[in-house]
Amino acid sequence: MSAKSIAVLTSGGDAPGMNAAIRAVVRSGISKGFSVLGVRRGYNGLLNGDVYEMNLRSVSDIIGRGGTILYTARSPEFNAPEGVKKAAEVCSRLNVVGVVVIGGDGSFRGARDLTNAGVPCIGIPGTIDNDIASSEYTIGFDTAMNTAVDMIDRIRDTAESHDRCSVVEVMGRHCGDLALQVGVATGAISILVPEMPWDFQTDIIDRIRLAQKTGKRHFIIMVAEGVGGTNEIANRIQKETGIETRATILGHVQRGGSPNLRDRVVASEMGYHAVTLLEEGQGNRVVVVRGGKVVDFDITEALNMKRTFNKALYDVALSISI
Amino acid sequence: MSAKSIAVLTSGGDAPGMNAAIRAVVRSGISKGFSVLGVRRGYNGLLNGDVYEMNLRSVSDIIGRGGTILYTARSPEFNAPEGVKKAAEVCSRLNVVGVVVIGGDGSFRGARDLTNAGVPCIGIPGTIDNDIASSEYTIGFDTAMNTAVDMIDRIRDTAESHDRCSVVEVMGRHCGDLALQVGVATGAISILVPEMPWDFQTDIIDRIRLAQKTGKRHFIIMVAEGVGGTNEIANRIQKETGIETRATILGHVQRGGSPNLRDRVVASEMGYHAVTLLEEGQGNRVVVVRGGKVVDFDITEALNMKRTFNKALYDVALSISI
Amino acid sequence: MSAKSIAVLTSGGDAPGMNAAIRAVVRSGISKGFSVLGVRRGYNGLLNGDVYEMNLRSVSDIIGRGGTILYTARSPEFNAPEGVKKAAEVCSRLNVVGVVVIGGDGSFRGARDLTNAGVPCIGIPGTIDNDIASSEYTIGFDTAMNTAVDMIDRIRDTAESHDRCSVVEVMGRHCGDLALQVGVATGAISILVPEMPWDFQTDIIDRIRLAQKTGKRHFIIMVAEGVGGTNEIANRIQKETGIETRATILGHVQRGGSPNLRDRVVASEMGYHAVTLLEEGQGNRVVVVRGGKVVDFDITEALNMKRTFNKALYDVALSISI
Amino acid sequence: MSAKSIAVLTSGGDAPGMNAAIRAVVRSGISKGFSVLGVRRGYNGLLNGDVYEMNLRSVSDIIGRGGTILYTARSPEFNAPEGVKKAAEVCSRLNVVGVVVIGGDGSFRGARDLTNAGVPCIGIPGTIDNDIASSEYTIGFDTAMNTAVDMIDRIRDTAESHDRCSVVEVMGRHCGDLALQVGVATGAISILVPEMPWDFQTDIIDRIRLAQKTGKRHFIIMVAEGVGGTNEIANRIQKETGIETRATILGHVQRGGSPNLRDRVVASEMGYHAVTLLEEGQGNRVVVVRGGKVVDFDITEALNMKRTFNKALYDVALSISI
Repeated sequence: MSAKSIAVLTSGGDAPGMNAAIRAVVRSGISKGFSVLGVRRGYNGLLNGDVYEMNLRSVSDIIGRGGTILYTARSPEFNAPEGVKKAAEVCSRLNVVGVVVIGGDGSFRGARDLTNAGVPCIGIPGTIDNDIASSEYTIGFDTAMNTAVDMIDRIRDTAESHDRCSVVEVMGRHCGDLALQVGVATGAISILVPEMPWDFQTDIIDRIRLAQKTGKRHFIIMVAEGVGGTNEIANRIQKETGIETRATILGHVQRGGSPNLRDRVVASEMGYHAVTLLEEGQGNRVVVVRGGKVVDFDITEALNMKRTFNKALYDVALSISI
Repeated sequence: MSAKSIAVLTSGGDAPGMNAAIRAVVRSGISKGFSVLGVRRGYNGLLNGDVYEMNLRSVSDIIGRGGTILYTARSPEFNAPEGVKKAAEVCSRLNVVGVVVIGGDGSFRGARDLTNAGVPCIGIPGTIDNDIASSEYTIGFDTAMNTAVDMIDRIRDTAESHDRCSVVEVMGRHCGDLALQVGVATGAISILVPEMPWDFQTDIIDRIRLAQKTGKRHFIIMVAEGVGGTNEIANRIQKETGIETRATILGHVQRGGSPNLRDRVVASEMGYHAVTLLEEGQGNRVVVVRGGKVVDFDITEALNMKRTFNKALYDVALSISI
Repeated sequence: MSAKSIAVLTSGGDAPGMNAAIRAVVRSGISKGFSVLGVRRGYNGLLNGDVYEMNLRSVSDIIGRGGTILYTARSPEFNAPEGVKKAAEVCSRLNVVGVVVIGGDGSFRGARDLTNAGVPCIGIPGTIDNDIASSEYTIGFDTAMNTAVDMIDRIRDTAESHDRCSVVEVMGRHCGDLALQVGVATGAISILVPEMPWDFQTDIIDRIRLAQKTGKRHFIIMVAEGVGGTNEIANRIQKETGIETRATILGHVQRGGSPNLRDRVVASEMGYHAVTLLEEGQGNRVVVVRGGKVVDFDITEALNMKRTFNKALYDVALSISI
Repeated sequence: MSAKSIAVLTSGGDAPGMNAAIRAVVRSGISKGFSVLGVRRGYNGLLNGDVYEMNLRSVSDIIGRGGTILYTARSPEFNAPEGVKKAAEVCSRLNVVGVVVIGGDGSFRGARDLTNAGVPCIGIPGTIDNDIASSEYTIGFDTAMNTAVDMIDRIRDTAESHDRCSVVEVMGRHCGDLALQVGVATGAISILVPEMPWDFQTDIIDRIRLAQKTGKRHFIIMVAEGVGGTNEIANRIQKETGIETRATILGHVQRGGSPNLRDRVVASEMGYHAVTLLEEGQGNRVVVVRGGKVVDFDITEALNMKRTFNKALYDVALSISI
């Protein structure tokens, strides 16, 4: 191992494109003179020294693979101050002068703590929910959205054949972006997200009735995970309208699959950018997309930002879905 | 309308490839000198006279579309003797000399009854479950299987990234074919189907332990809908093994989507064959695949056949999945 | 037909997402009180009066369909001044107070001319090449890129199995965006685009040799259509390196297919925005994406803009593809 | 290494599902008490001793991967008698008591020769062309067909949008199966295969004219590689009909991609069956599908069989494609 190493790990839920980010970190790290250590299973691997040196060929043919070749896990031990201290010691012992952490807000808090303990860390947003306030885009979002669209297009075939209403729940606990975009793309007549208030009569029943008057006989209602109550909503629609209604909860299927182009490209750019920051000796930064460009922010600042919901798109959705 | 008409309808659950069958019936019907009536919403449409004359272009560009352009519905009214009688009268009034019914066993019973009431009917097996004893293959099966494989490949990315066990339920109430084939194709280490007895300890836990000894850290357990208890199985696995375990029920997504090649081709052959039978004045026949060829059987005979489970493939699955 | 109509047409090469744009124009047009005329086969249809009134249901279930339900064609007649005049007269006769033109730069020049002849026109960029200088994004680009990625991932399987080099040509006569993005996403070790000079020895052979030293045995070389010479490049690589090399030209396959999420969503926003402009009485505007937002420019201004190539991404590509 | 080894290799062109067959050979080989050697790059690897012992985990997560993890290559050296003798000596030195060869007819001839030289060999048909006379099905065929269908569905979007004729060439030098099946599935109005005579006027022009009379405005002509002349056919159609016509040659894209269900399942059954034969001490057998079942034949016998073209399906295709 060379004198100067950087480490890379994935943390939190897996997202398509994480491998592309790992690949970019490894390749650009080596090209900038670092040795690069792959850390298995997130902060756990850092605590246990479960690392291995990666070379240019360690990341061959992974750009198109879903999941993460470094695995991921939660690490309760790391969340405690002694955990962070221990991780910093491991880094020191391994000559690790910087760590790239691919994950969500929770992972970034770990990165901030580890930076404070003396190991410069750079965060890369990898989560299918697009729920990182500081970034317009998170790795995995586009693949997850398109997976959801593909599945709902299938559900629509059946809904149309049977004159049914389909209530579909997609991922997004605090963030309705996935539901909104997928709702627009699949022609959902109602889109329920945590960011917007909604009323069963006005936002669902009245819109179904309105659509029926124009001759429409099958309907999609999009529900974000954070809104919930999908089965109840379906039952109530059937009861009040007489339209046969089915609920579908798209689960973990949304997480996997070969990353599509956008996730591969953004992940590649972010991975490269992260290494550039470490090369400059910077830490406690998170790499984000702003105004369509890859830039970086202070992690603490980034964690304090507030998300804004795309109300304009929501309004477009309402006006063209019937 | 010409003197001699044939009608075509889809009944029961929709299946990818139904449109390809409709297309073949319409095109070969017209080329054989019939006028062809499309009946909307299954036997209901026949009762209500909800039919329209189709021409060669009515079925343009539908071979690749999921669902059914003729819609489908249940028809409690038709199931009663008066319903059948009324349907026969409608057929008589419309000069319908034969009806092609695309659906499952329930639809075939209707076809048999309507034949007995004087209207020769031909059944075509269209159901994603492959649960028609008389036929080796039912339209929609291949597309549904491949949809399930695609989704489980995605789930596997996450299972692998997190060292998890995934319990996945696929369609098939009485027939484990879909679970068996998909289980083989996705490397499931256990496959639970209605046709085979199973024991939680032997068929699940012991196999997981065995696989763990070889270094395997993520697992797929395939469950047919007719076995059920998917959530309970998942909970019990997690409790007994300590492996993080998730249940996923693949729902209506399995029904839709553009039919793949096999469903388009088999449906085309079956539709053509059905019209040939009507041209010969035959009725009460079901078009099936036997020994890889499209042939036909008496409906009553076909309905009395018993399915045989592919035990040989099941054994192969067990011996190569660890 | 109501007193005030707007018309919508597609012109130039088809692109996935055009139907989503048509749908948004029709639905938002009607909701704003216009009647909406669909014009078949581009400016030709306008000249021949080949139009029909569309209602809310005319655009049902088209958001996920490739191609354009309004068809498209070249129109030499319209390109002459008398053609424009005649089209303006047809618009006047049909009470058309505005036209939405979905297409590329050529189509926008027509829209400018028709505006000058008294019919306010709004352009929407629909072309898979992303070659509209005024817009960061054109409808169809994302679907085309992902289709190309999917195909090159397949080619890579064979290249890897046989230790081969694959030279792949993708669309883009004047614009290397597609080649660049797809090259990054598929790990191409060389990307040849019209915007950047390249040298056979330095940019191809030297990079192959360098990659070989690290253990790499299969290679992808990406070529934009506008660079050309794909077969010659392949032959020369094989001759100089001894590596079995194959050329593949991805043709019209890149144009079709169900639009993916981004194309559906951007097309929906652009269609809505275009109608808003017509409602305000504006003409000679083109709807574009800038800084990630949907905005509009004067057509003449837009046509005079110069494209900038994403050199930063090109550099990232080079530094992480070996 | 244990006393008794079997070896597995892939030879000839790669095909999706080869990895599934390798996996089945390795897993069932080990479960039957053999050690299993993976041979790299076909018969070449056997000559050079380029082999490695595979364990149960060597084939983890490959069932869904395209190409072949054992690589493949042509081996002129092996085709000479001294080559076969040398390979037999290598086998003897490595205690190899049986070899499973996955490939086409050329690979089977090698397997026959090696059996004659004292090393029992079993052939498994792996080729996307379905051109093995003894087997109804070859591994890779279904994936290749569906890839072609997916691409032609895309081409059709453009053909329809522009009222064009598309002439599409698919793989199959001596065997028209792929063109026939894909032609049926994509609604091609003409299908040109090596097995059937055809006339430009009768089989192409007359059929286009006939279709035009019914209102059809876009056309697909399917051409098998073995027929060739695709560009000339396209030019001649445009010249004689005035319809804008484009030729597309689907190349290596057809070879790759994640194998679909059928290829994974058939490959698994065949791999298992091959090992069973070696366990019984049998050699010079080829594993095939007959009457929908996996059985085996003497290789020499199999190589002498003649293919029969599915004329019945060809006739169905003609009667329903207009």
